[in-house]
Amino acid sequence: MKRLLLVASLIGAAPALADEGMWTYNNFPASKLKAKYGFEPSQEWLDKTRLSSGKFGFGCSSSFVSPDGLVMTNHHCARGCIQQLSTAEKDFIANGFYAKTQAEELQCPALEVSQLVQITDVTDKLNAATKGLTGKAYADTLKAEMAKLEKDCTTGADVRCDVVTLYQGGKYNLYEYQRFQDVRLVFAPEHAIAFFGGDPDNFEFPRYDLDVTFVRVYKDGKPAKIDNYFKWSDKGAKDGELTFVSGHPGRTSRGLTVAQLEYLRDVALPKQLFKMSEIRGMVTEFQNRGPEQKRISNNLLFGVENGLKSTKGKHEQLVDKNFFAQKVAAEQELRKKINANPKMKAKYGAAWDEIARAQDTLRNIRKEYEGMEAGGIGSQLFGLARTLVRASDELARPDTERLRGFNEANLPQLKNQLMSKAPIYPELEIAQLTFSLTKLREELGPDHPFVKKVLGNESPASLAARVVKGSTLADPKAREQLFTGGKAAITASTDPMIQLAALVDPDARAIRKVYEEQVEAVVRKNSELIAQAKFEVYGTGIYPDATGTLRLSFGAVKGYTEDGKQVEPITAMGGTFERHTGEEPFALPKTWLAAQKDLTATTPMNFVTTNDIIGGNSGSPVINKNREIVGLVFDGNIQSLGGDYGYDESVNRTVAVHSEALIEALKKVYKADRVLEELRPGSTPTVKVTPGL
Amino acid sequence: MKRLLLVASLIGAAPALADEGMWTYNNFPASKLKAKYGFEPSQEWLDKTRLSSGKFGFGCSSSFVSPDGLVMTNHHCARGCIQQLSTAEKDFIANGFYAKTQAEELQCPALEVSQLVQITDVTDKLNAATKGLTGKAYADTLKAEMAKLEKDCTTGADVRCDVVTLYQGGKYNLYEYQRFQDVRLVFAPEHAIAFFGGDPDNFEFPRYDLDVTFVRVYKDGKPAKIDNYFKWSDKGAKDGELTFVSGHPGRTSRGLTVAQLEYLRDVALPKQLFKMSEIRGMVTEFQNRGPEQKRISNNLLFGVENGLKSTKGKHEQLVDKNFFAQKVAAEQELRKKINANPKMKAKYGAAWDEIARAQDTLRNIRKEYEGMEAGGIGSQLFGLARTLVRASDELARPDTERLRGFNEANLPQLKNQLMSKAPIYPELEIAQLTFSLTKLREELGPDHPFVKKVLGNESPASLAARVVKGSTLADPKAREQLFTGGKAAITASTDPMIQLAALVDPDARAIRKVYEEQVEAVVRKNSELIAQAKFEVYGTGIYPDATGTLRLSFGAVKGYTEDGKQVEPITAMGGTFERHTGEEPFALPKTWLAAQKDLTATTPMNFVTTNDIIGGNSGSPVINKNREIVGLVFDGNIQSLGGDYGYDESVNRTVAVHSEALIEALKKVYKADRVLEELRPGSTPTVKVTPGL
Repeated sequence: MKRLLLVASLIGAAPALADEGMWTYNNFPASKLKAKYGFEPSQEWLDKTRLSSGKFGFGCSSSFVSPDGLVMTNHHCARGCIQQLSTAEKDFIANGFYAKTQAEELQCPALEVSQLVQITDVTDKLNAATKGLTGKAYADTLKAEMAKLEKDCTTGADVRCDVVTLYQGGKYNLYEYQRFQDVRLVFAPEHAIAFFGGDPDNFEFPRYDLDVTFVRVYKDGKPAKIDNYFKWSDKGAKDGELTFVSGHPGRTSRGLTVAQLEYLRDVALPKQLFKMSEIRGMVTEFQNRGPEQKRISNNLLFGVENGLKSTKGKHEQLVDKNFFAQKVAAEQELRKKINANPKMKAKYGAAWDEIARAQDTLRNIRKEYEGMEAGGIGSQLFGLARTLVRASDELARPDTERLRGFNEANLPQLKNQLMSKAPIYPELEIAQLTFSLTKLREELGPDHPFVKKVLGNESPASLAARVVKGSTLADPKAREQLFTGGKAAITASTDPMIQLAALVDPDARAIRKVYEEQVEAVVRKNSELIAQAKFEVYGTGIYPDATGTLRLSFGAVKGYTEDGKQVEPITAMGGTFERHTGEEPFALPKTWLAAQKDLTATTPMNFVTTNDIIGGNSGSPVINKNREIVGLVFDGNIQSLGGDYGYDESVNRTVAVHSEALIEALKKVYKADRVLEELRPGSTPTVKVTPGL
Repeated sequence: MKRLLLVASLIGAAPALADEGMWTYNNFPASKLKAKYGFEPSQEWLDKTRLSSGKFGFGCSSSFVSPDGLVMTNHHCARGCIQQLSTAEKDFIANGFYAKTQAEELQCPALEVSQLVQITDVTDKLNAATKGLTGKAYADTLKAEMAKLEKDCTTGADVRCDVVTLYQGGKYNLYEYQRFQDVRLVFAPEHAIAFFGGDPDNFEFPRYDLDVTFVRVYKDGKPAKIDNYFKWSDKGAKDGELTFVSGHPGRTSRGLTVAQLEYLRDVALPKQLFKMSEIRGMVTEFQNRGPEQKRISNNLLFGVENGLKSTKGKHEQLVDKNFFAQKVAAEQELRKKINANPKMKAKYGAAWDEIARAQDTLRNIRKEYEGMEAGGIGSQLFGLARTLVRASDELARPDTERLRGFNEANLPQLKNQLMSKAPIYPELEIAQLTFSLTKLREELGPDHPFVKKVLGNESPASLAARVVKGSTLADPKAREQLFTGGKAAITASTDPMIQLAALVDPDARAIRKVYEEQVEAVVRKNSELIAQAKFEVYGTGIYPDATGTLRLSFGAVKGYTEDGKQVEPITAMGGTFERHTGEEPFALPKTWLAAQKDLTATTPMNFVTTNDIIGGNSGSPVINKNREIVGLVFDGNIQSLGGDYGYDESVNRTVAVHSEALIEALKKVYKADRVLEELRPGSTPTVKVTPGL
């Protein structure tokens, strides 16, 4: 794999010619685009594109594709819902789902789609509030001010407001969302074609996946009326064509300091990879317990394998000596410029060293912070128990003093998650909790007071079995009673999972406080300074690191060279059948084998573009300059995995399902006329219905 | 964990005062020892110590402890044999083993103990043969000359001769061993006390393990008569006492160049850790399939967890910035000295860059080399099949042209391994082979010609199940027939495992050749030069990196400081019971709980010394200056794991079972009078026999 050669993202300057950048909608480089592609999107174009885009759940993207609330995303984004709606008897993951009538559309237990309706710059307000503060005072004030802004903006349960930290704190924007919390499943293909090639093909290209799912957002029990949505392109994307991707890239780390990257390279990523690898081995073998255990753990395994492969890509990028040397050189150059100007030196000069010191602190507290607080104890039931325990404390406090996530503005979302009807599988819960308690003991050692407190004389396996089997929290009603009962209900609860969460909470809060004040606040404060220094030195025409919020990227359909060979940008549907071996993950579903004779082999299947994206962009629409759907983002190529730290136009590629493949499959494989008609009103399916479908 | 501060091992100079060094018996710094400890071992002392030491299997150490061939090692070294002798009905791992009479001693299916009887320096011979050669010619000549020396030395089936490469090629020594291939199990405690504390306590201290096993070597069906053996100390080790460890440290990498260490840090160790972590998760969950599956996979899990923890320690050492900076500085200093002398510069100057280039080559071929050849396809049956396939080719060639491992000198050992009666478990084989085929496809990609050739249209799981279930190789007789039948038998074989091995062999040999000629030979040749350069600059009073061959280290019983707290050097038997929770791995066996009232709580249990050891030293005797057993090495502390790359006397510690704990347990827990009498002739057990034991 060729490693990245970076320019813009390294030095923090504006990219000159490359298709680099996950741009915010209020700082899109429209004129630059004109220079390169001869097209300059208008403000109206940008507004309509933004409003036609939807955040999907909390880690994916989607788009509105009809005036009646039809939403397109990836199968792998909706698979949580699809699995939750499945049972051992009706397995929609394995067999797919199609609601032939609106009445058959099934409500997802815990899902929301949201639309970014307003962006407001609140940088000056927050800077004024925190001026001159450091450490705890800085962190507390910033948190309180953010909570206040969010609360004031949240005018109802269907509104969510987030203060978004951009440019590592160089800017703060308030994002207001319209929330759609009634989301129903309309169409999903079989897992076997949605994720054809499985983990071996994941992040690879050429590719042959139909990674799509359609859901519909409802309002007051009826399909929501949507003013802004994307229409379907007649032909789809062609080689060389200008493309836009509007979606929610999760996180990039291109603006991090060398000390932060070193921490990631040497500590955080390796530790995470060891843990994920072990979970992968565990869940892979858990699947051998039986077909039902396989079914209930498929989602977990998929997530772990996906995360593992992408995290490995990041690690490889950071251990690349040449790449890292460029990062070091870029930082040194910026610091040299800062230090050459006495005023700038006084203001910004120490920021990098402060961040480096915070990384040293993080190295020292990492085991305790991760073990006690940051996802150390992994099980859905434990997570719910912890939220209930914390809510009983936090909601009694003034809004500005609460832990983030428990503010008034977050309550609708918090309740939604707490009361979700998504099934919880005790056998898998026990396995996961056993695993994480074993890791806790391994990392902190059996003699650590916290480990002794948690385990007592029990083994991880006995404790996990006891608290999972003894807990009633799998029942949403039990959770509701504890939530509404507040502190008194929690204190009186004899639920062993609640008791476990209550037992560990003081230690978890204590280490979290150390983290927030000695690491997070220091990094935030000094990253703000570095971001301001970059603005001063390189100007403001730069994009911020991804933060899970809506971004727009531009690029073109374009092949690339790998190991000396040219990779063509578009695959054909016929190739899908050539790749079929009959054995998972290269086994096509029966529907496809049956429809093969009807499918046009030359139909474009998947394609790549130079758009700069990252995990979280899954489900994003690929649109042309007329704002028409030409594809559906579902992956990046293996070379793009290092994109967390930089972008190289020569090999970084977005991987998408072609719009024509979607139509061809909906028409000839699935006969999903109702969806087709909605996507392309007036188009009439012409294929005869194959018996048995 | 405090990280190492290194001096001697970093610069390649002779350690001045530290207890550093795994010394060869023909270059032991006796006078240095006198200066520090007031004792200078004589040549006779050294010879007798060497002859009383035994290599145990191919990865452990041991000692002769009676004139009748009694050998002491660790339980974890002998557990392969103990497990092989066990069945679902008679589980000696869980319940321990004691042969009350000599007739009850059980023969280990595949084990040998060997005694180093002669060391000859052959450096000049080999250097003369390879003078002026490079690349393939150098590698071939060196291999041929080594094979010749080994063959000439091997005078019978009970003799083994190895040319040992010391100082990365600075010296070559011919080691001649007396082999004992009839090894019988005499005594083993229960796994629960041998490995009390399990993985959580592994590499930790304070510690409470009785990690011991006694076996006996036989000759012509009778206990072998041993002239040189260690007698038992009356009192065992005391705080501050001078101690020696004579054993077979496996491998250290203290002499590697920075480029080699970078490869380990950035590529080899992380990749290995990801794989081992996944295997660990897989095997941990495999154990849940049932009690028999747990039993047959215990050994594998133990090995993986042990390797994982120690490899993590190595990785942590290398990502330690300060440590690595010292390595870089030391190399720069040496190169500066070399470059300042025109003659030395001409001779040695380019060696580091050549090695760096070889590491780049290794990065490029790693996936194929590991996937096809170096342990990529992991299963016992596949390993046997590959050996059979290769033997059928290699044995037809002249001795000097064979692959290493197939030379005449290696044949006795090769046959022993091939015909071993150790049980092979198909269910575990399928799981392991599935795993490694999945990894192969993952690393090389499903479109790699080798992957397509191996898998065809099968999934890893189907292929693994087919070849394991269809193979007869689990039967030693089938292997014998194929071995004696030679090429004709292999070609005619319809055994699917043989066919798989034959299918992959051409590719495996091809990539091995690339590795040997473009990586190994280059590294070897240039490491020789660097070693010679170090001799020229720093003198010859230095120890070579560990190579799995016999070494002697010295040190003292001594505590250390961890996280600001003093760790006492000796634990007491009473602490063992305080650590008992009743849940694995902190559950003591019934025998111990029953004997608790008879045991003297203050008996020393485990202790630490400053001896410089590494993995492979397990089972080594700890002796005092009178050559008496005072302990039994079974571990290093967590700080010693970085010992692969350097030694820090302030925290590196050897962990050993105290000789008094062994006596107390043999006497009062196990009533193993026959063993006791042999260790301390004339001593009479005085404890009453507890009913029920």
